[in-house]
This record gives sequence, C-alpha cells and structure tokens, in this order.
Amino acid sequence: MRKFASGRLRSLLIHPFQQKHILRPHHPSSSLSSSLPRFLSSSTPVLDFPPSSTSSMADPSASKLPVTLQNINPKILKCEYAVRGEIVTLAQRLQEELLANPGSHPFDEILYCNIGNPQSLGQHPITFFREVLALCDHPSILDKSETQGLFSADAIERAWQILDQIPGRATGAYSHSQGIKGLRDTISAGIEARDGYPADPNDIFLTDGASPAVHMMMQLLISSEQDGILCPIPQYPLYSASIALHGGTLVPYFLDEASGWGLETSELKKQLEDARSKGINPRALVVINPGNPTGQVLAEDNQRQIVEFCKQEGLVLLADEVYQENVYVPDKEFHSFKKVSRSMGYGEKDISLVSFQSVSKGYYGECGKRGGYMEVTGISPDVREQIYKVASVNLCSNISGQILASLVMSPPKVGDESYELYCAEKDGILSSLARRAKTLEDALNNLEGVTCNRAEGAMYLFPRINLPQKAIKAAEAANTAPDAFYCRRLLNATGIVVVPGSGFGQVPGTWHFRCTILPQEDKIPAIVTRLTDFHKSFMDEFRD
Amino acid sequence: MRKFASGRLRSLLIHPFQQKHILRPHHPSSSLSSSLPRFLSSSTPVLDFPPSSTSSMADPSASKLPVTLQNINPKILKCEYAVRGEIVTLAQRLQEELLANPGSHPFDEILYCNIGNPQSLGQHPITFFREVLALCDHPSILDKSETQGLFSADAIERAWQILDQIPGRATGAYSHSQGIKGLRDTISAGIEARDGYPADPNDIFLTDGASPAVHMMMQLLISSEQDGILCPIPQYPLYSASIALHGGTLVPYFLDEASGWGLETSELKKQLEDARSKGINPRALVVINPGNPTGQVLAEDNQRQIVEFCKQEGLVLLADEVYQENVYVPDKEFHSFKKVSRSMGYGEKDISLVSFQSVSKGYYGECGKRGGYMEVTGISPDVREQIYKVASVNLCSNISGQILASLVMSPPKVGDESYELYCAEKDGILSSLARRAKTLEDALNNLEGVTCNRAEGAMYLFPRINLPQKAIKAAEAANTAPDAFYCRRLLNATGIVVVPGSGFGQVPGTWHFRCTILPQEDKIPAIVTRLTDFHKSFMDEFRD
Repeated sequence: MRKFASGRLRSLLIHPFQQKHILRPHHPSSSLSSSLPRFLSSSTPVLDFPPSSTSSMADPSASKLPVTLQNINPKILKCEYAVRGEIVTLAQRLQEELLANPGSHPFDEILYCNIGNPQSLGQHPITFFREVLALCDHPSILDKSETQGLFSADAIERAWQILDQIPGRATGAYSHSQGIKGLRDTISAGIEARDGYPADPNDIFLTDGASPAVHMMMQLLISSEQDGILCPIPQYPLYSASIALHGGTLVPYFLDEASGWGLETSELKKQLEDARSKGINPRALVVINPGNPTGQVLAEDNQRQIVEFCKQEGLVLLADEVYQENVYVPDKEFHSFKKVSRSMGYGEKDISLVSFQSVSKGYYGECGKRGGYMEVTGISPDVREQIYKVASVNLCSNISGQILASLVMSPPKVGDESYELYCAEKDGILSSLARRAKTLEDALNNLEGVTCNRAEGAMYLFPRINLPQKAIKAAEAANTAPDAFYCRRLLNATGIVVVPGSGFGQVPGTWHFRCTILPQEDKIPAIVTRLTDFHKSFMDEFRD
Repeated sequence: MRKFASGRLRSLLIHPFQQKHILRPHHPSSSLSSSLPRFLSSSTPVLDFPPSSTSSMADPSASKLPVTLQNINPKILKCEYAVRGEIVTLAQRLQEELLANPGSHPFDEILYCNIGNPQSLGQHPITFFREVLALCDHPSILDKSETQGLFSADAIERAWQILDQIPGRATGAYSHSQGIKGLRDTISAGIEARDGYPADPNDIFLTDGASPAVHMMMQLLISSEQDGILCPIPQYPLYSASIALHGGTLVPYFLDEASGWGLETSELKKQLEDARSKGINPRALVVINPGNPTGQVLAEDNQRQIVEFCKQEGLVLLADEVYQENVYVPDKEFHSFKKVSRSMGYGEKDISLVSFQSVSKGYYGECGKRGGYMEVTGISPDVREQIYKVASVNLCSNISGQILASLVMSPPKVGDESYELYCAEKDGILSSLARRAKTLEDALNNLEGVTCNRAEGAMYLFPRINLPQKAIKAAEAANTAPDAFYCRRLLNATGIVVVPGSGFGQVPGTWHFRCTILPQEDKIPAIVTRLTDFHKSFMDEFRD
C-alpha cells in the first residue's frame, strides 16, 4: 500500500490524531448558522430573511445530481450583487422580447443605467490607447509601411517601447505575477507625477480589473467572521459580496446624506467601538473616493482625519480610487490617500494603505479590457510575499489590460502626435459627463418627493425617493422592497434600468436608486421625459 | 442614532441574540488548527512542518503595522504553488546577476523549463489569431484601404463577424458575465464539432484562463474541511493551492508510474473509502487529461471507468482538458469526458461534469491573453444560477481572451485565405513539440539512475531520479527536499529551471522533477549536453 508524502506539500498534511479535533466544529449542516458571512447590525434587531434564490427553485427532475443548493458553500448563497441582480435579469428578458417582437413594450430600447459601463452606451475608446493595444497584439505589422498610414507615430513608438519591456517581446507569455516590470515602472512614475511623492514598482500588483485586487485583500485579511471590514453605507456591493464570499463581517458606517454624503470620523469611531463590543476585530476600512454609488468627492481635510483614524486604530486603509479621473465640479479635486498620508509625514512604517485603480472607469471606460492594479504600501515584506504567492497561483493578469493600465497612467504628452486628439477625446468625454450629471440631477430634483445630491465625481446619481405609504404597501403585497418595486415599475414603463438602493445599503426607512450618468448626451432629454412622466403617473397611482 | 437596514442586504444581517452562537466557535487563535486547509494522508502519519515562509522572516522594523503573518488568513499561509516557488525566485536572481555582470555564472542565459509558457521561450503566436485580436482592438481601421494590405481577408471578415456579435460593437464594454453570447455560440459549435454531441452556449462560462474557473468550482463545492476533492498525485499544484485557499481537504489518489502514470479505479475506490472512513465527504474528482505534470493521455476505456465511478459515487467530474490539442504519439488520441459520457448514454441528468479549457496551452500557447472557459453540464439550474452570481461579482472576463477562446475553437477552415499559413504554423509547432519531447525523453532515460515515461501529451516530462543516499543526506543537511536539492544544483550549474517533484506530490521515497518540452528546437542539443554533464558530475560527487 502506498503512502503519501511530498516535500513542499507536507505542510498540508495532518496527523491522524488531529482529525477528531478537526472534524468536530465544522460539520456543514450543524454549523450552518455559524459559518454564514454576515453584516454587523448597528444596534437593533432587523428582519433577517434568506436570499430569494434559495427557496422553491430546486429542479426536482435534477434531484439525482450530486450538487444542490443544500450542499454548496453557504457563503455563496449569502453573497448578493445587485448591480447584476434580478432587475437586470428582467431587463435582459425585455430586451429579448423587443428583439423578437418589436412594439411589444412602450419603449423601443433598454437603457442600461445600472452599471458603470460607458462603452456599452456608445462612448468611444481613446484612439491612442487602442492603437497601442492593436500594435502590441500583432507586432509583426510594426515595421510594415502601411502601418504608418494607419497608426499615429507616437502609438507606434509606444508599442515598440512596451514590447522592449517584455522579455522576448512576447505579449503572449505569462508575465511576472505582479505584472510586467517595465509597465509597473511606468505606472509608479505616473503615481509619482500625480502625487508628488515616490512610488515603488514593487508595490504595484497588476490585476484583471480592480475587483480581483479587492478579493485578494479580503482573502488576506479575513480568517473568520470575527474579522470585520468597515464599509460605507451606501457601498458598492463588490465589498459586501467579497466579504460574504470570504466569510467575514461587514461593519457598516453611514454616510450622511444631508451633508452631501459626508464621512464623519465620529461615526467611524462609534461603529468601530460597537463592533469591538460585539467581539468583532475590525481589520480594515474601505473608503470609496470619489464615491460609488454616492458620487461625492472627499475634501483633503476629511481624508487626513480618515488616515489618522486608521493609523490610530490599526486599520488597513483600503482606498477605492477607481474614479480618480471622474471629478465634475470646480470646487472639488481628487487627492489620493497615498498623497494625503505622505503629506502628513506618514510613510511605509506608519500606515497600511492599499489603493485600487482600474482601466474601466475614468474618461477611458475600458471595462472589457479588465485592467487594473493595486498599490500596496505599509505592508511588511513577509506579508507582501504571501500576497505575491496568491497572485502567482493565478499566474498573471491579462497583458492587454496590463498595457492599458500603463497607458492610462502615462497618456500622450505635449508634443506627441496624438496629444491634440487625445485631449479632445478626453475633454469631450469628461465635459459631457459633467453636463449629463447636472441635467439628470436637476431633473431628479424636480420630481415630486425626490431629492438628489450632486454627482461631484464618479458615474452615478443616488437620488432619495420619498415613497407614499400606498406604494410601500403595494411593494409589501408584491413581496419586494419598496425601492425595488419602484425600479421594476420604472423598467417596465420606460426601459430604463436602475439599481434599487437596497442593493447598496441605506438608512432604514429611506429609499433610493442608483442611476448612471452614462447614456449618450443626445438620449438624455428623452430619458428625462420618460423618467418624469413615469414618476408622475407612479405618484398619481400611489399618492396617499 | 441611525440603524442599519437594506432590502437585499438584509440577508447578511444577524440578530444580536444570534451573536453569542456565532462568535463562539470561530475565534482565530483558538481554532487555528481546525481552520487549516489540509491534505488527507493516505494511512500513516507523516511529518507536518510549517511552510518555510512563516518563520523568522518578520521584519522587526515594520512591527507597528497592523498586518502580520500571525493575523492573516491561515489558509493563505498553507497554500503553496511550486511552479513559481523558490527555485524560480532563485532563477530570477541569477538572471539579474547575469544582466548586471555577464560571465558571473557558468551559463549565459536562464532557461525557464519550469512553466508551460511557450511564447516566453520563443514560440510565435498563430498569425490569424493575432490579426483578429488586433482588428477587434482597433476596429476603426477595419474599413481603411491600408488594412487590406496588412491583414488577411478572412481575419478582416472574422473581426467583423465578432464585432457584430457584440452589442454596439463595444469591445471595451463589460459583457454578459458568462461571456459574449455570440462567442459562446461559436465555442459550443466547436465543442459539438469536436465531440459529435450537442453543446449548449448557456453551459459555457468564459474566464480569464482556466485557473479562475477552477477556483470558482472549488469555492462552490467546498464549505469546510469535511469537503474533499480527489486529486491525482502527482497533480498540477493549482489544485492543491485552490483547495487550501478554500479550506477543503485534498484526497490524493496515486497515478501508477510503472504503467505510464496509469489511473486505476481500484485506487480511486480505495482512497474514496479511506477518506469517507475519516469523516471526509468527497465532492469531486479532478482528472487532468492529457496529464500535468505526467504527460499521459488516457485511453477511452479508462475514461469510461472514471465516468462510471463518478456517477456511482455522486462525484462531480472536474476534467482539466487544457492540453486537448497537445497529443504527440500516434497510438493515443484525446477524447473529451463530455463525449465519453454521452457515448455511454449519460446525459445532463446522470453526470455532473465540468470541463476546463484554456487559450494558454495547445499549439497556440497564448498564456498572456488569459482566455479560457468551463463547460458546466449536469448542474441543476438553481445551482448554476449561483455560479452565475459569483461570476457576476467580477463582472466578466477580458474580451480579448473571450475572442481568442472562440478562435481556438473555430480556427480557419479549408478555403479561407489564412488556412494554409494556419496549418503550417500549427503543424510546425506540434510536430516540433513531439520531436522535442522525444529527444528530451531519450536524453533523460540515458542518465544514470533516471527513468522517464514518455510525454504522450501536454508539455512536460516528469522523470524519476534515483538519488544516491549521499545526495539525500546532503539535502537533509541543507534542510531541503532531495529533489529540490537536485533542481537547485541543476539551476546553479546550467541555468536550467525545473520544478521539484515534491511540488506536485509523489510516492514517498521517490524523487522527480518536471521539465517542460518548450525550449526552441535549436536549443535542445545544448540543454541535453548541459543536463547530461551536470547529472554526471552530480552523480560523481554523490554516488554511494
């Protein structure tokens, strides 16, 4: 009889005499409630109902199959991601119906305002970026004469530069697991230029968009439900989903709608202490700046308070800065948390700070390329080695996304052939987004019972709707949240897809929805009209 | 004082009175040993030492920082991934030394035979694939006249076809979370053509390479350490790493080296029963065909036995079929497990089968593109909805990788302009790989004390080295596994990077290494000479 042994793998082995101890506390059926990921309630009991998908959906004809909702990882059952949730599923169905049977609905297209996906709504990519990507995909055309006529000179030059940074110019090879070193050099130079403080290419981990980077940090920090992650409410549901999947506890802190979604450190302190009193060990603080879904841009002074708070309390500051290029108001400016903490004199030894960036947002909006990075600072070398190990299990992120991340941090400069076109494209997109944000914000504030803070940044408005009691009762009768009820009616009447506030979290008894500012400008007047007409008839139907 | 509540998120909330129950069993320090992922030992106790990285590496100067090896997720500490482990770190250091100081080592380049990364070693990409990718990256050149001179007509036509399958032709938009529907149609048509049985585009989940797909299935199936996954030994360490990260138990089954890495169902049965007797609930069986690191190609009859075994025992069959295009011997042929199970009359209701495919392997070897998919069959709709939800949290895989996955499943056909070039490139790569495999296999078998099964498929040889006792003692003195000792000496003497067998698992007392067959053909003679000379001097030094 063979026995198992292997050098490096021996660390995974257990002694038979350990098994009794190991087997006891984790039996899936007996410890279900204790292994559920969870959301730390602030103080009072709140209704706790199971996700809608767990009940009455089993396919009896498939009952012989070994995998059922009852025996899969319960963390997956608990995870929710409203941005692509049931309203979107309904929208996809309506779209198919429109295609199969035009005229079957009172609108002729679905307008996806549920997700920050600019190019799906007609935004064009930045020409220079796409030129470089195409050339890196097919380098053998680089020295052909026709290429000069098709591509700008600086795109050709940049492609050569990038190829020279890749061993063997092999864009089809796995790279270093943190990403190609030359691209990380470019990115850290871009961070330095942005912040005025040094950045180290060894701190950069390139990832397939920002989401996998967030997952990596949650996986690192969460060992059990005792590990808490402070998250804003409202929050981008990637955070609640990732915390649920990794089995931790979301510790909510509330943004103050009345002060433009302000972030008070007194609220942070209160929630931190409340969590600790319940046996939760908060490990990190998530800040989304500019805000998602709330659109606010933090003041530098406020950021300093947050840095100080994290330093004092021993929290890792997880700074979601993917909207750093999306600021629309003259009185606000983006400051990275790295710059703010360095300006306070805090360095590598003082504050643990991870900043997330993505090619999906900004003026570029390259969601489909899945590029992004995290800059990991104030993490000791031995812990960073563990992060590297986890990155290496997936080998590397996609090279086109890596290249694009270097391009957005190092766009064309004055004097480059592409510079003028680049500026025109960038400014055109950002100024149009600012106009769209203002038009939609004004339209929402003109609706009966709706108030909407301004979108200082990011890509969203998050209006509050004061729903009549009759509408709330109708929602209850339909077994759905009132804001989801409103959003579903809106979709059925207008084809406009928005996400109910309940998918992001909100103060109890308040109702919101998130609407992107991304539909192309020529469509905005029709959206305003459709939304206004719908809201009026909704209120007429349900007004108390 | 504000209270927390939100509709969809309420499912994550807990009642305060539940907290006592929830807090108790999971305290990180008290339950450390019970929360460790683990490797089920076959029968006898085996030394269990902690991973090398956990000890004595803490940076005392960083001790004020909140994250330490002591308070991160212990599952991460337990995870190992030898393919990019310490031998590779040493190789990177030697490479830097060679660059800074040529002549500083007895070789002038590092030969990375540790990883299946063909283009890093000079393999060229398939022209047609890259043409289509470049055109999809920069569609605005599609109707320019110069483009006709640079790109083949069928690449231009294919790019148009693909763009027409993408809503708004937006290659920069997030797609459906399973991938672009039109591309999934193409892929399922390719599967049908391969197998002769129907495939459903709704069963396809496009992913950033095969690794994230494997993680998704492990995340779904593993709730606790009681959930076991049967894996071959030797195995590709993605599996042990993923099981460790998700907190499950790896149940090993041994491939029989003497019969060319044969897979016996009697061995499966024995290990399954052994695991069950220890309270483990095996959920799935991993089969890698063609084998990694072992290179064998399963016979169809053997595959039928495996299918029958999974069906009888209620195991999900996780079929790693990423090397399906890499078969080098005339007496073997690749058969997908889907085709085999359908040929046995087993359909959706009979067997749960997930097949993994990647653009990184085959003759294309496009590792850097991070494309791949899993075909999920025999999974009930409600469970599949949960897989979709997890996919949706990360939005989608990168679009270039999705496009490439469709291309490898639907390459140029007879009559297409690119067809001849495509065939020449493909056949050139595959026939060269076959020659390289044979040359290296023969060279290894010529070494004193080395035996090597043939590489029927995949990209690796996994020779067994019968190390002299004196070498084993020297390795012990150096506090390293004997095969790692050998590999390190090989690297230092020749610049050739291979992975010790202990990174994959092996029968106790046997020692192996994994060596890819990927160095370009003109380098093979020098590799054979260097390896032969090294081995001779190693044996001269340590021969008993």
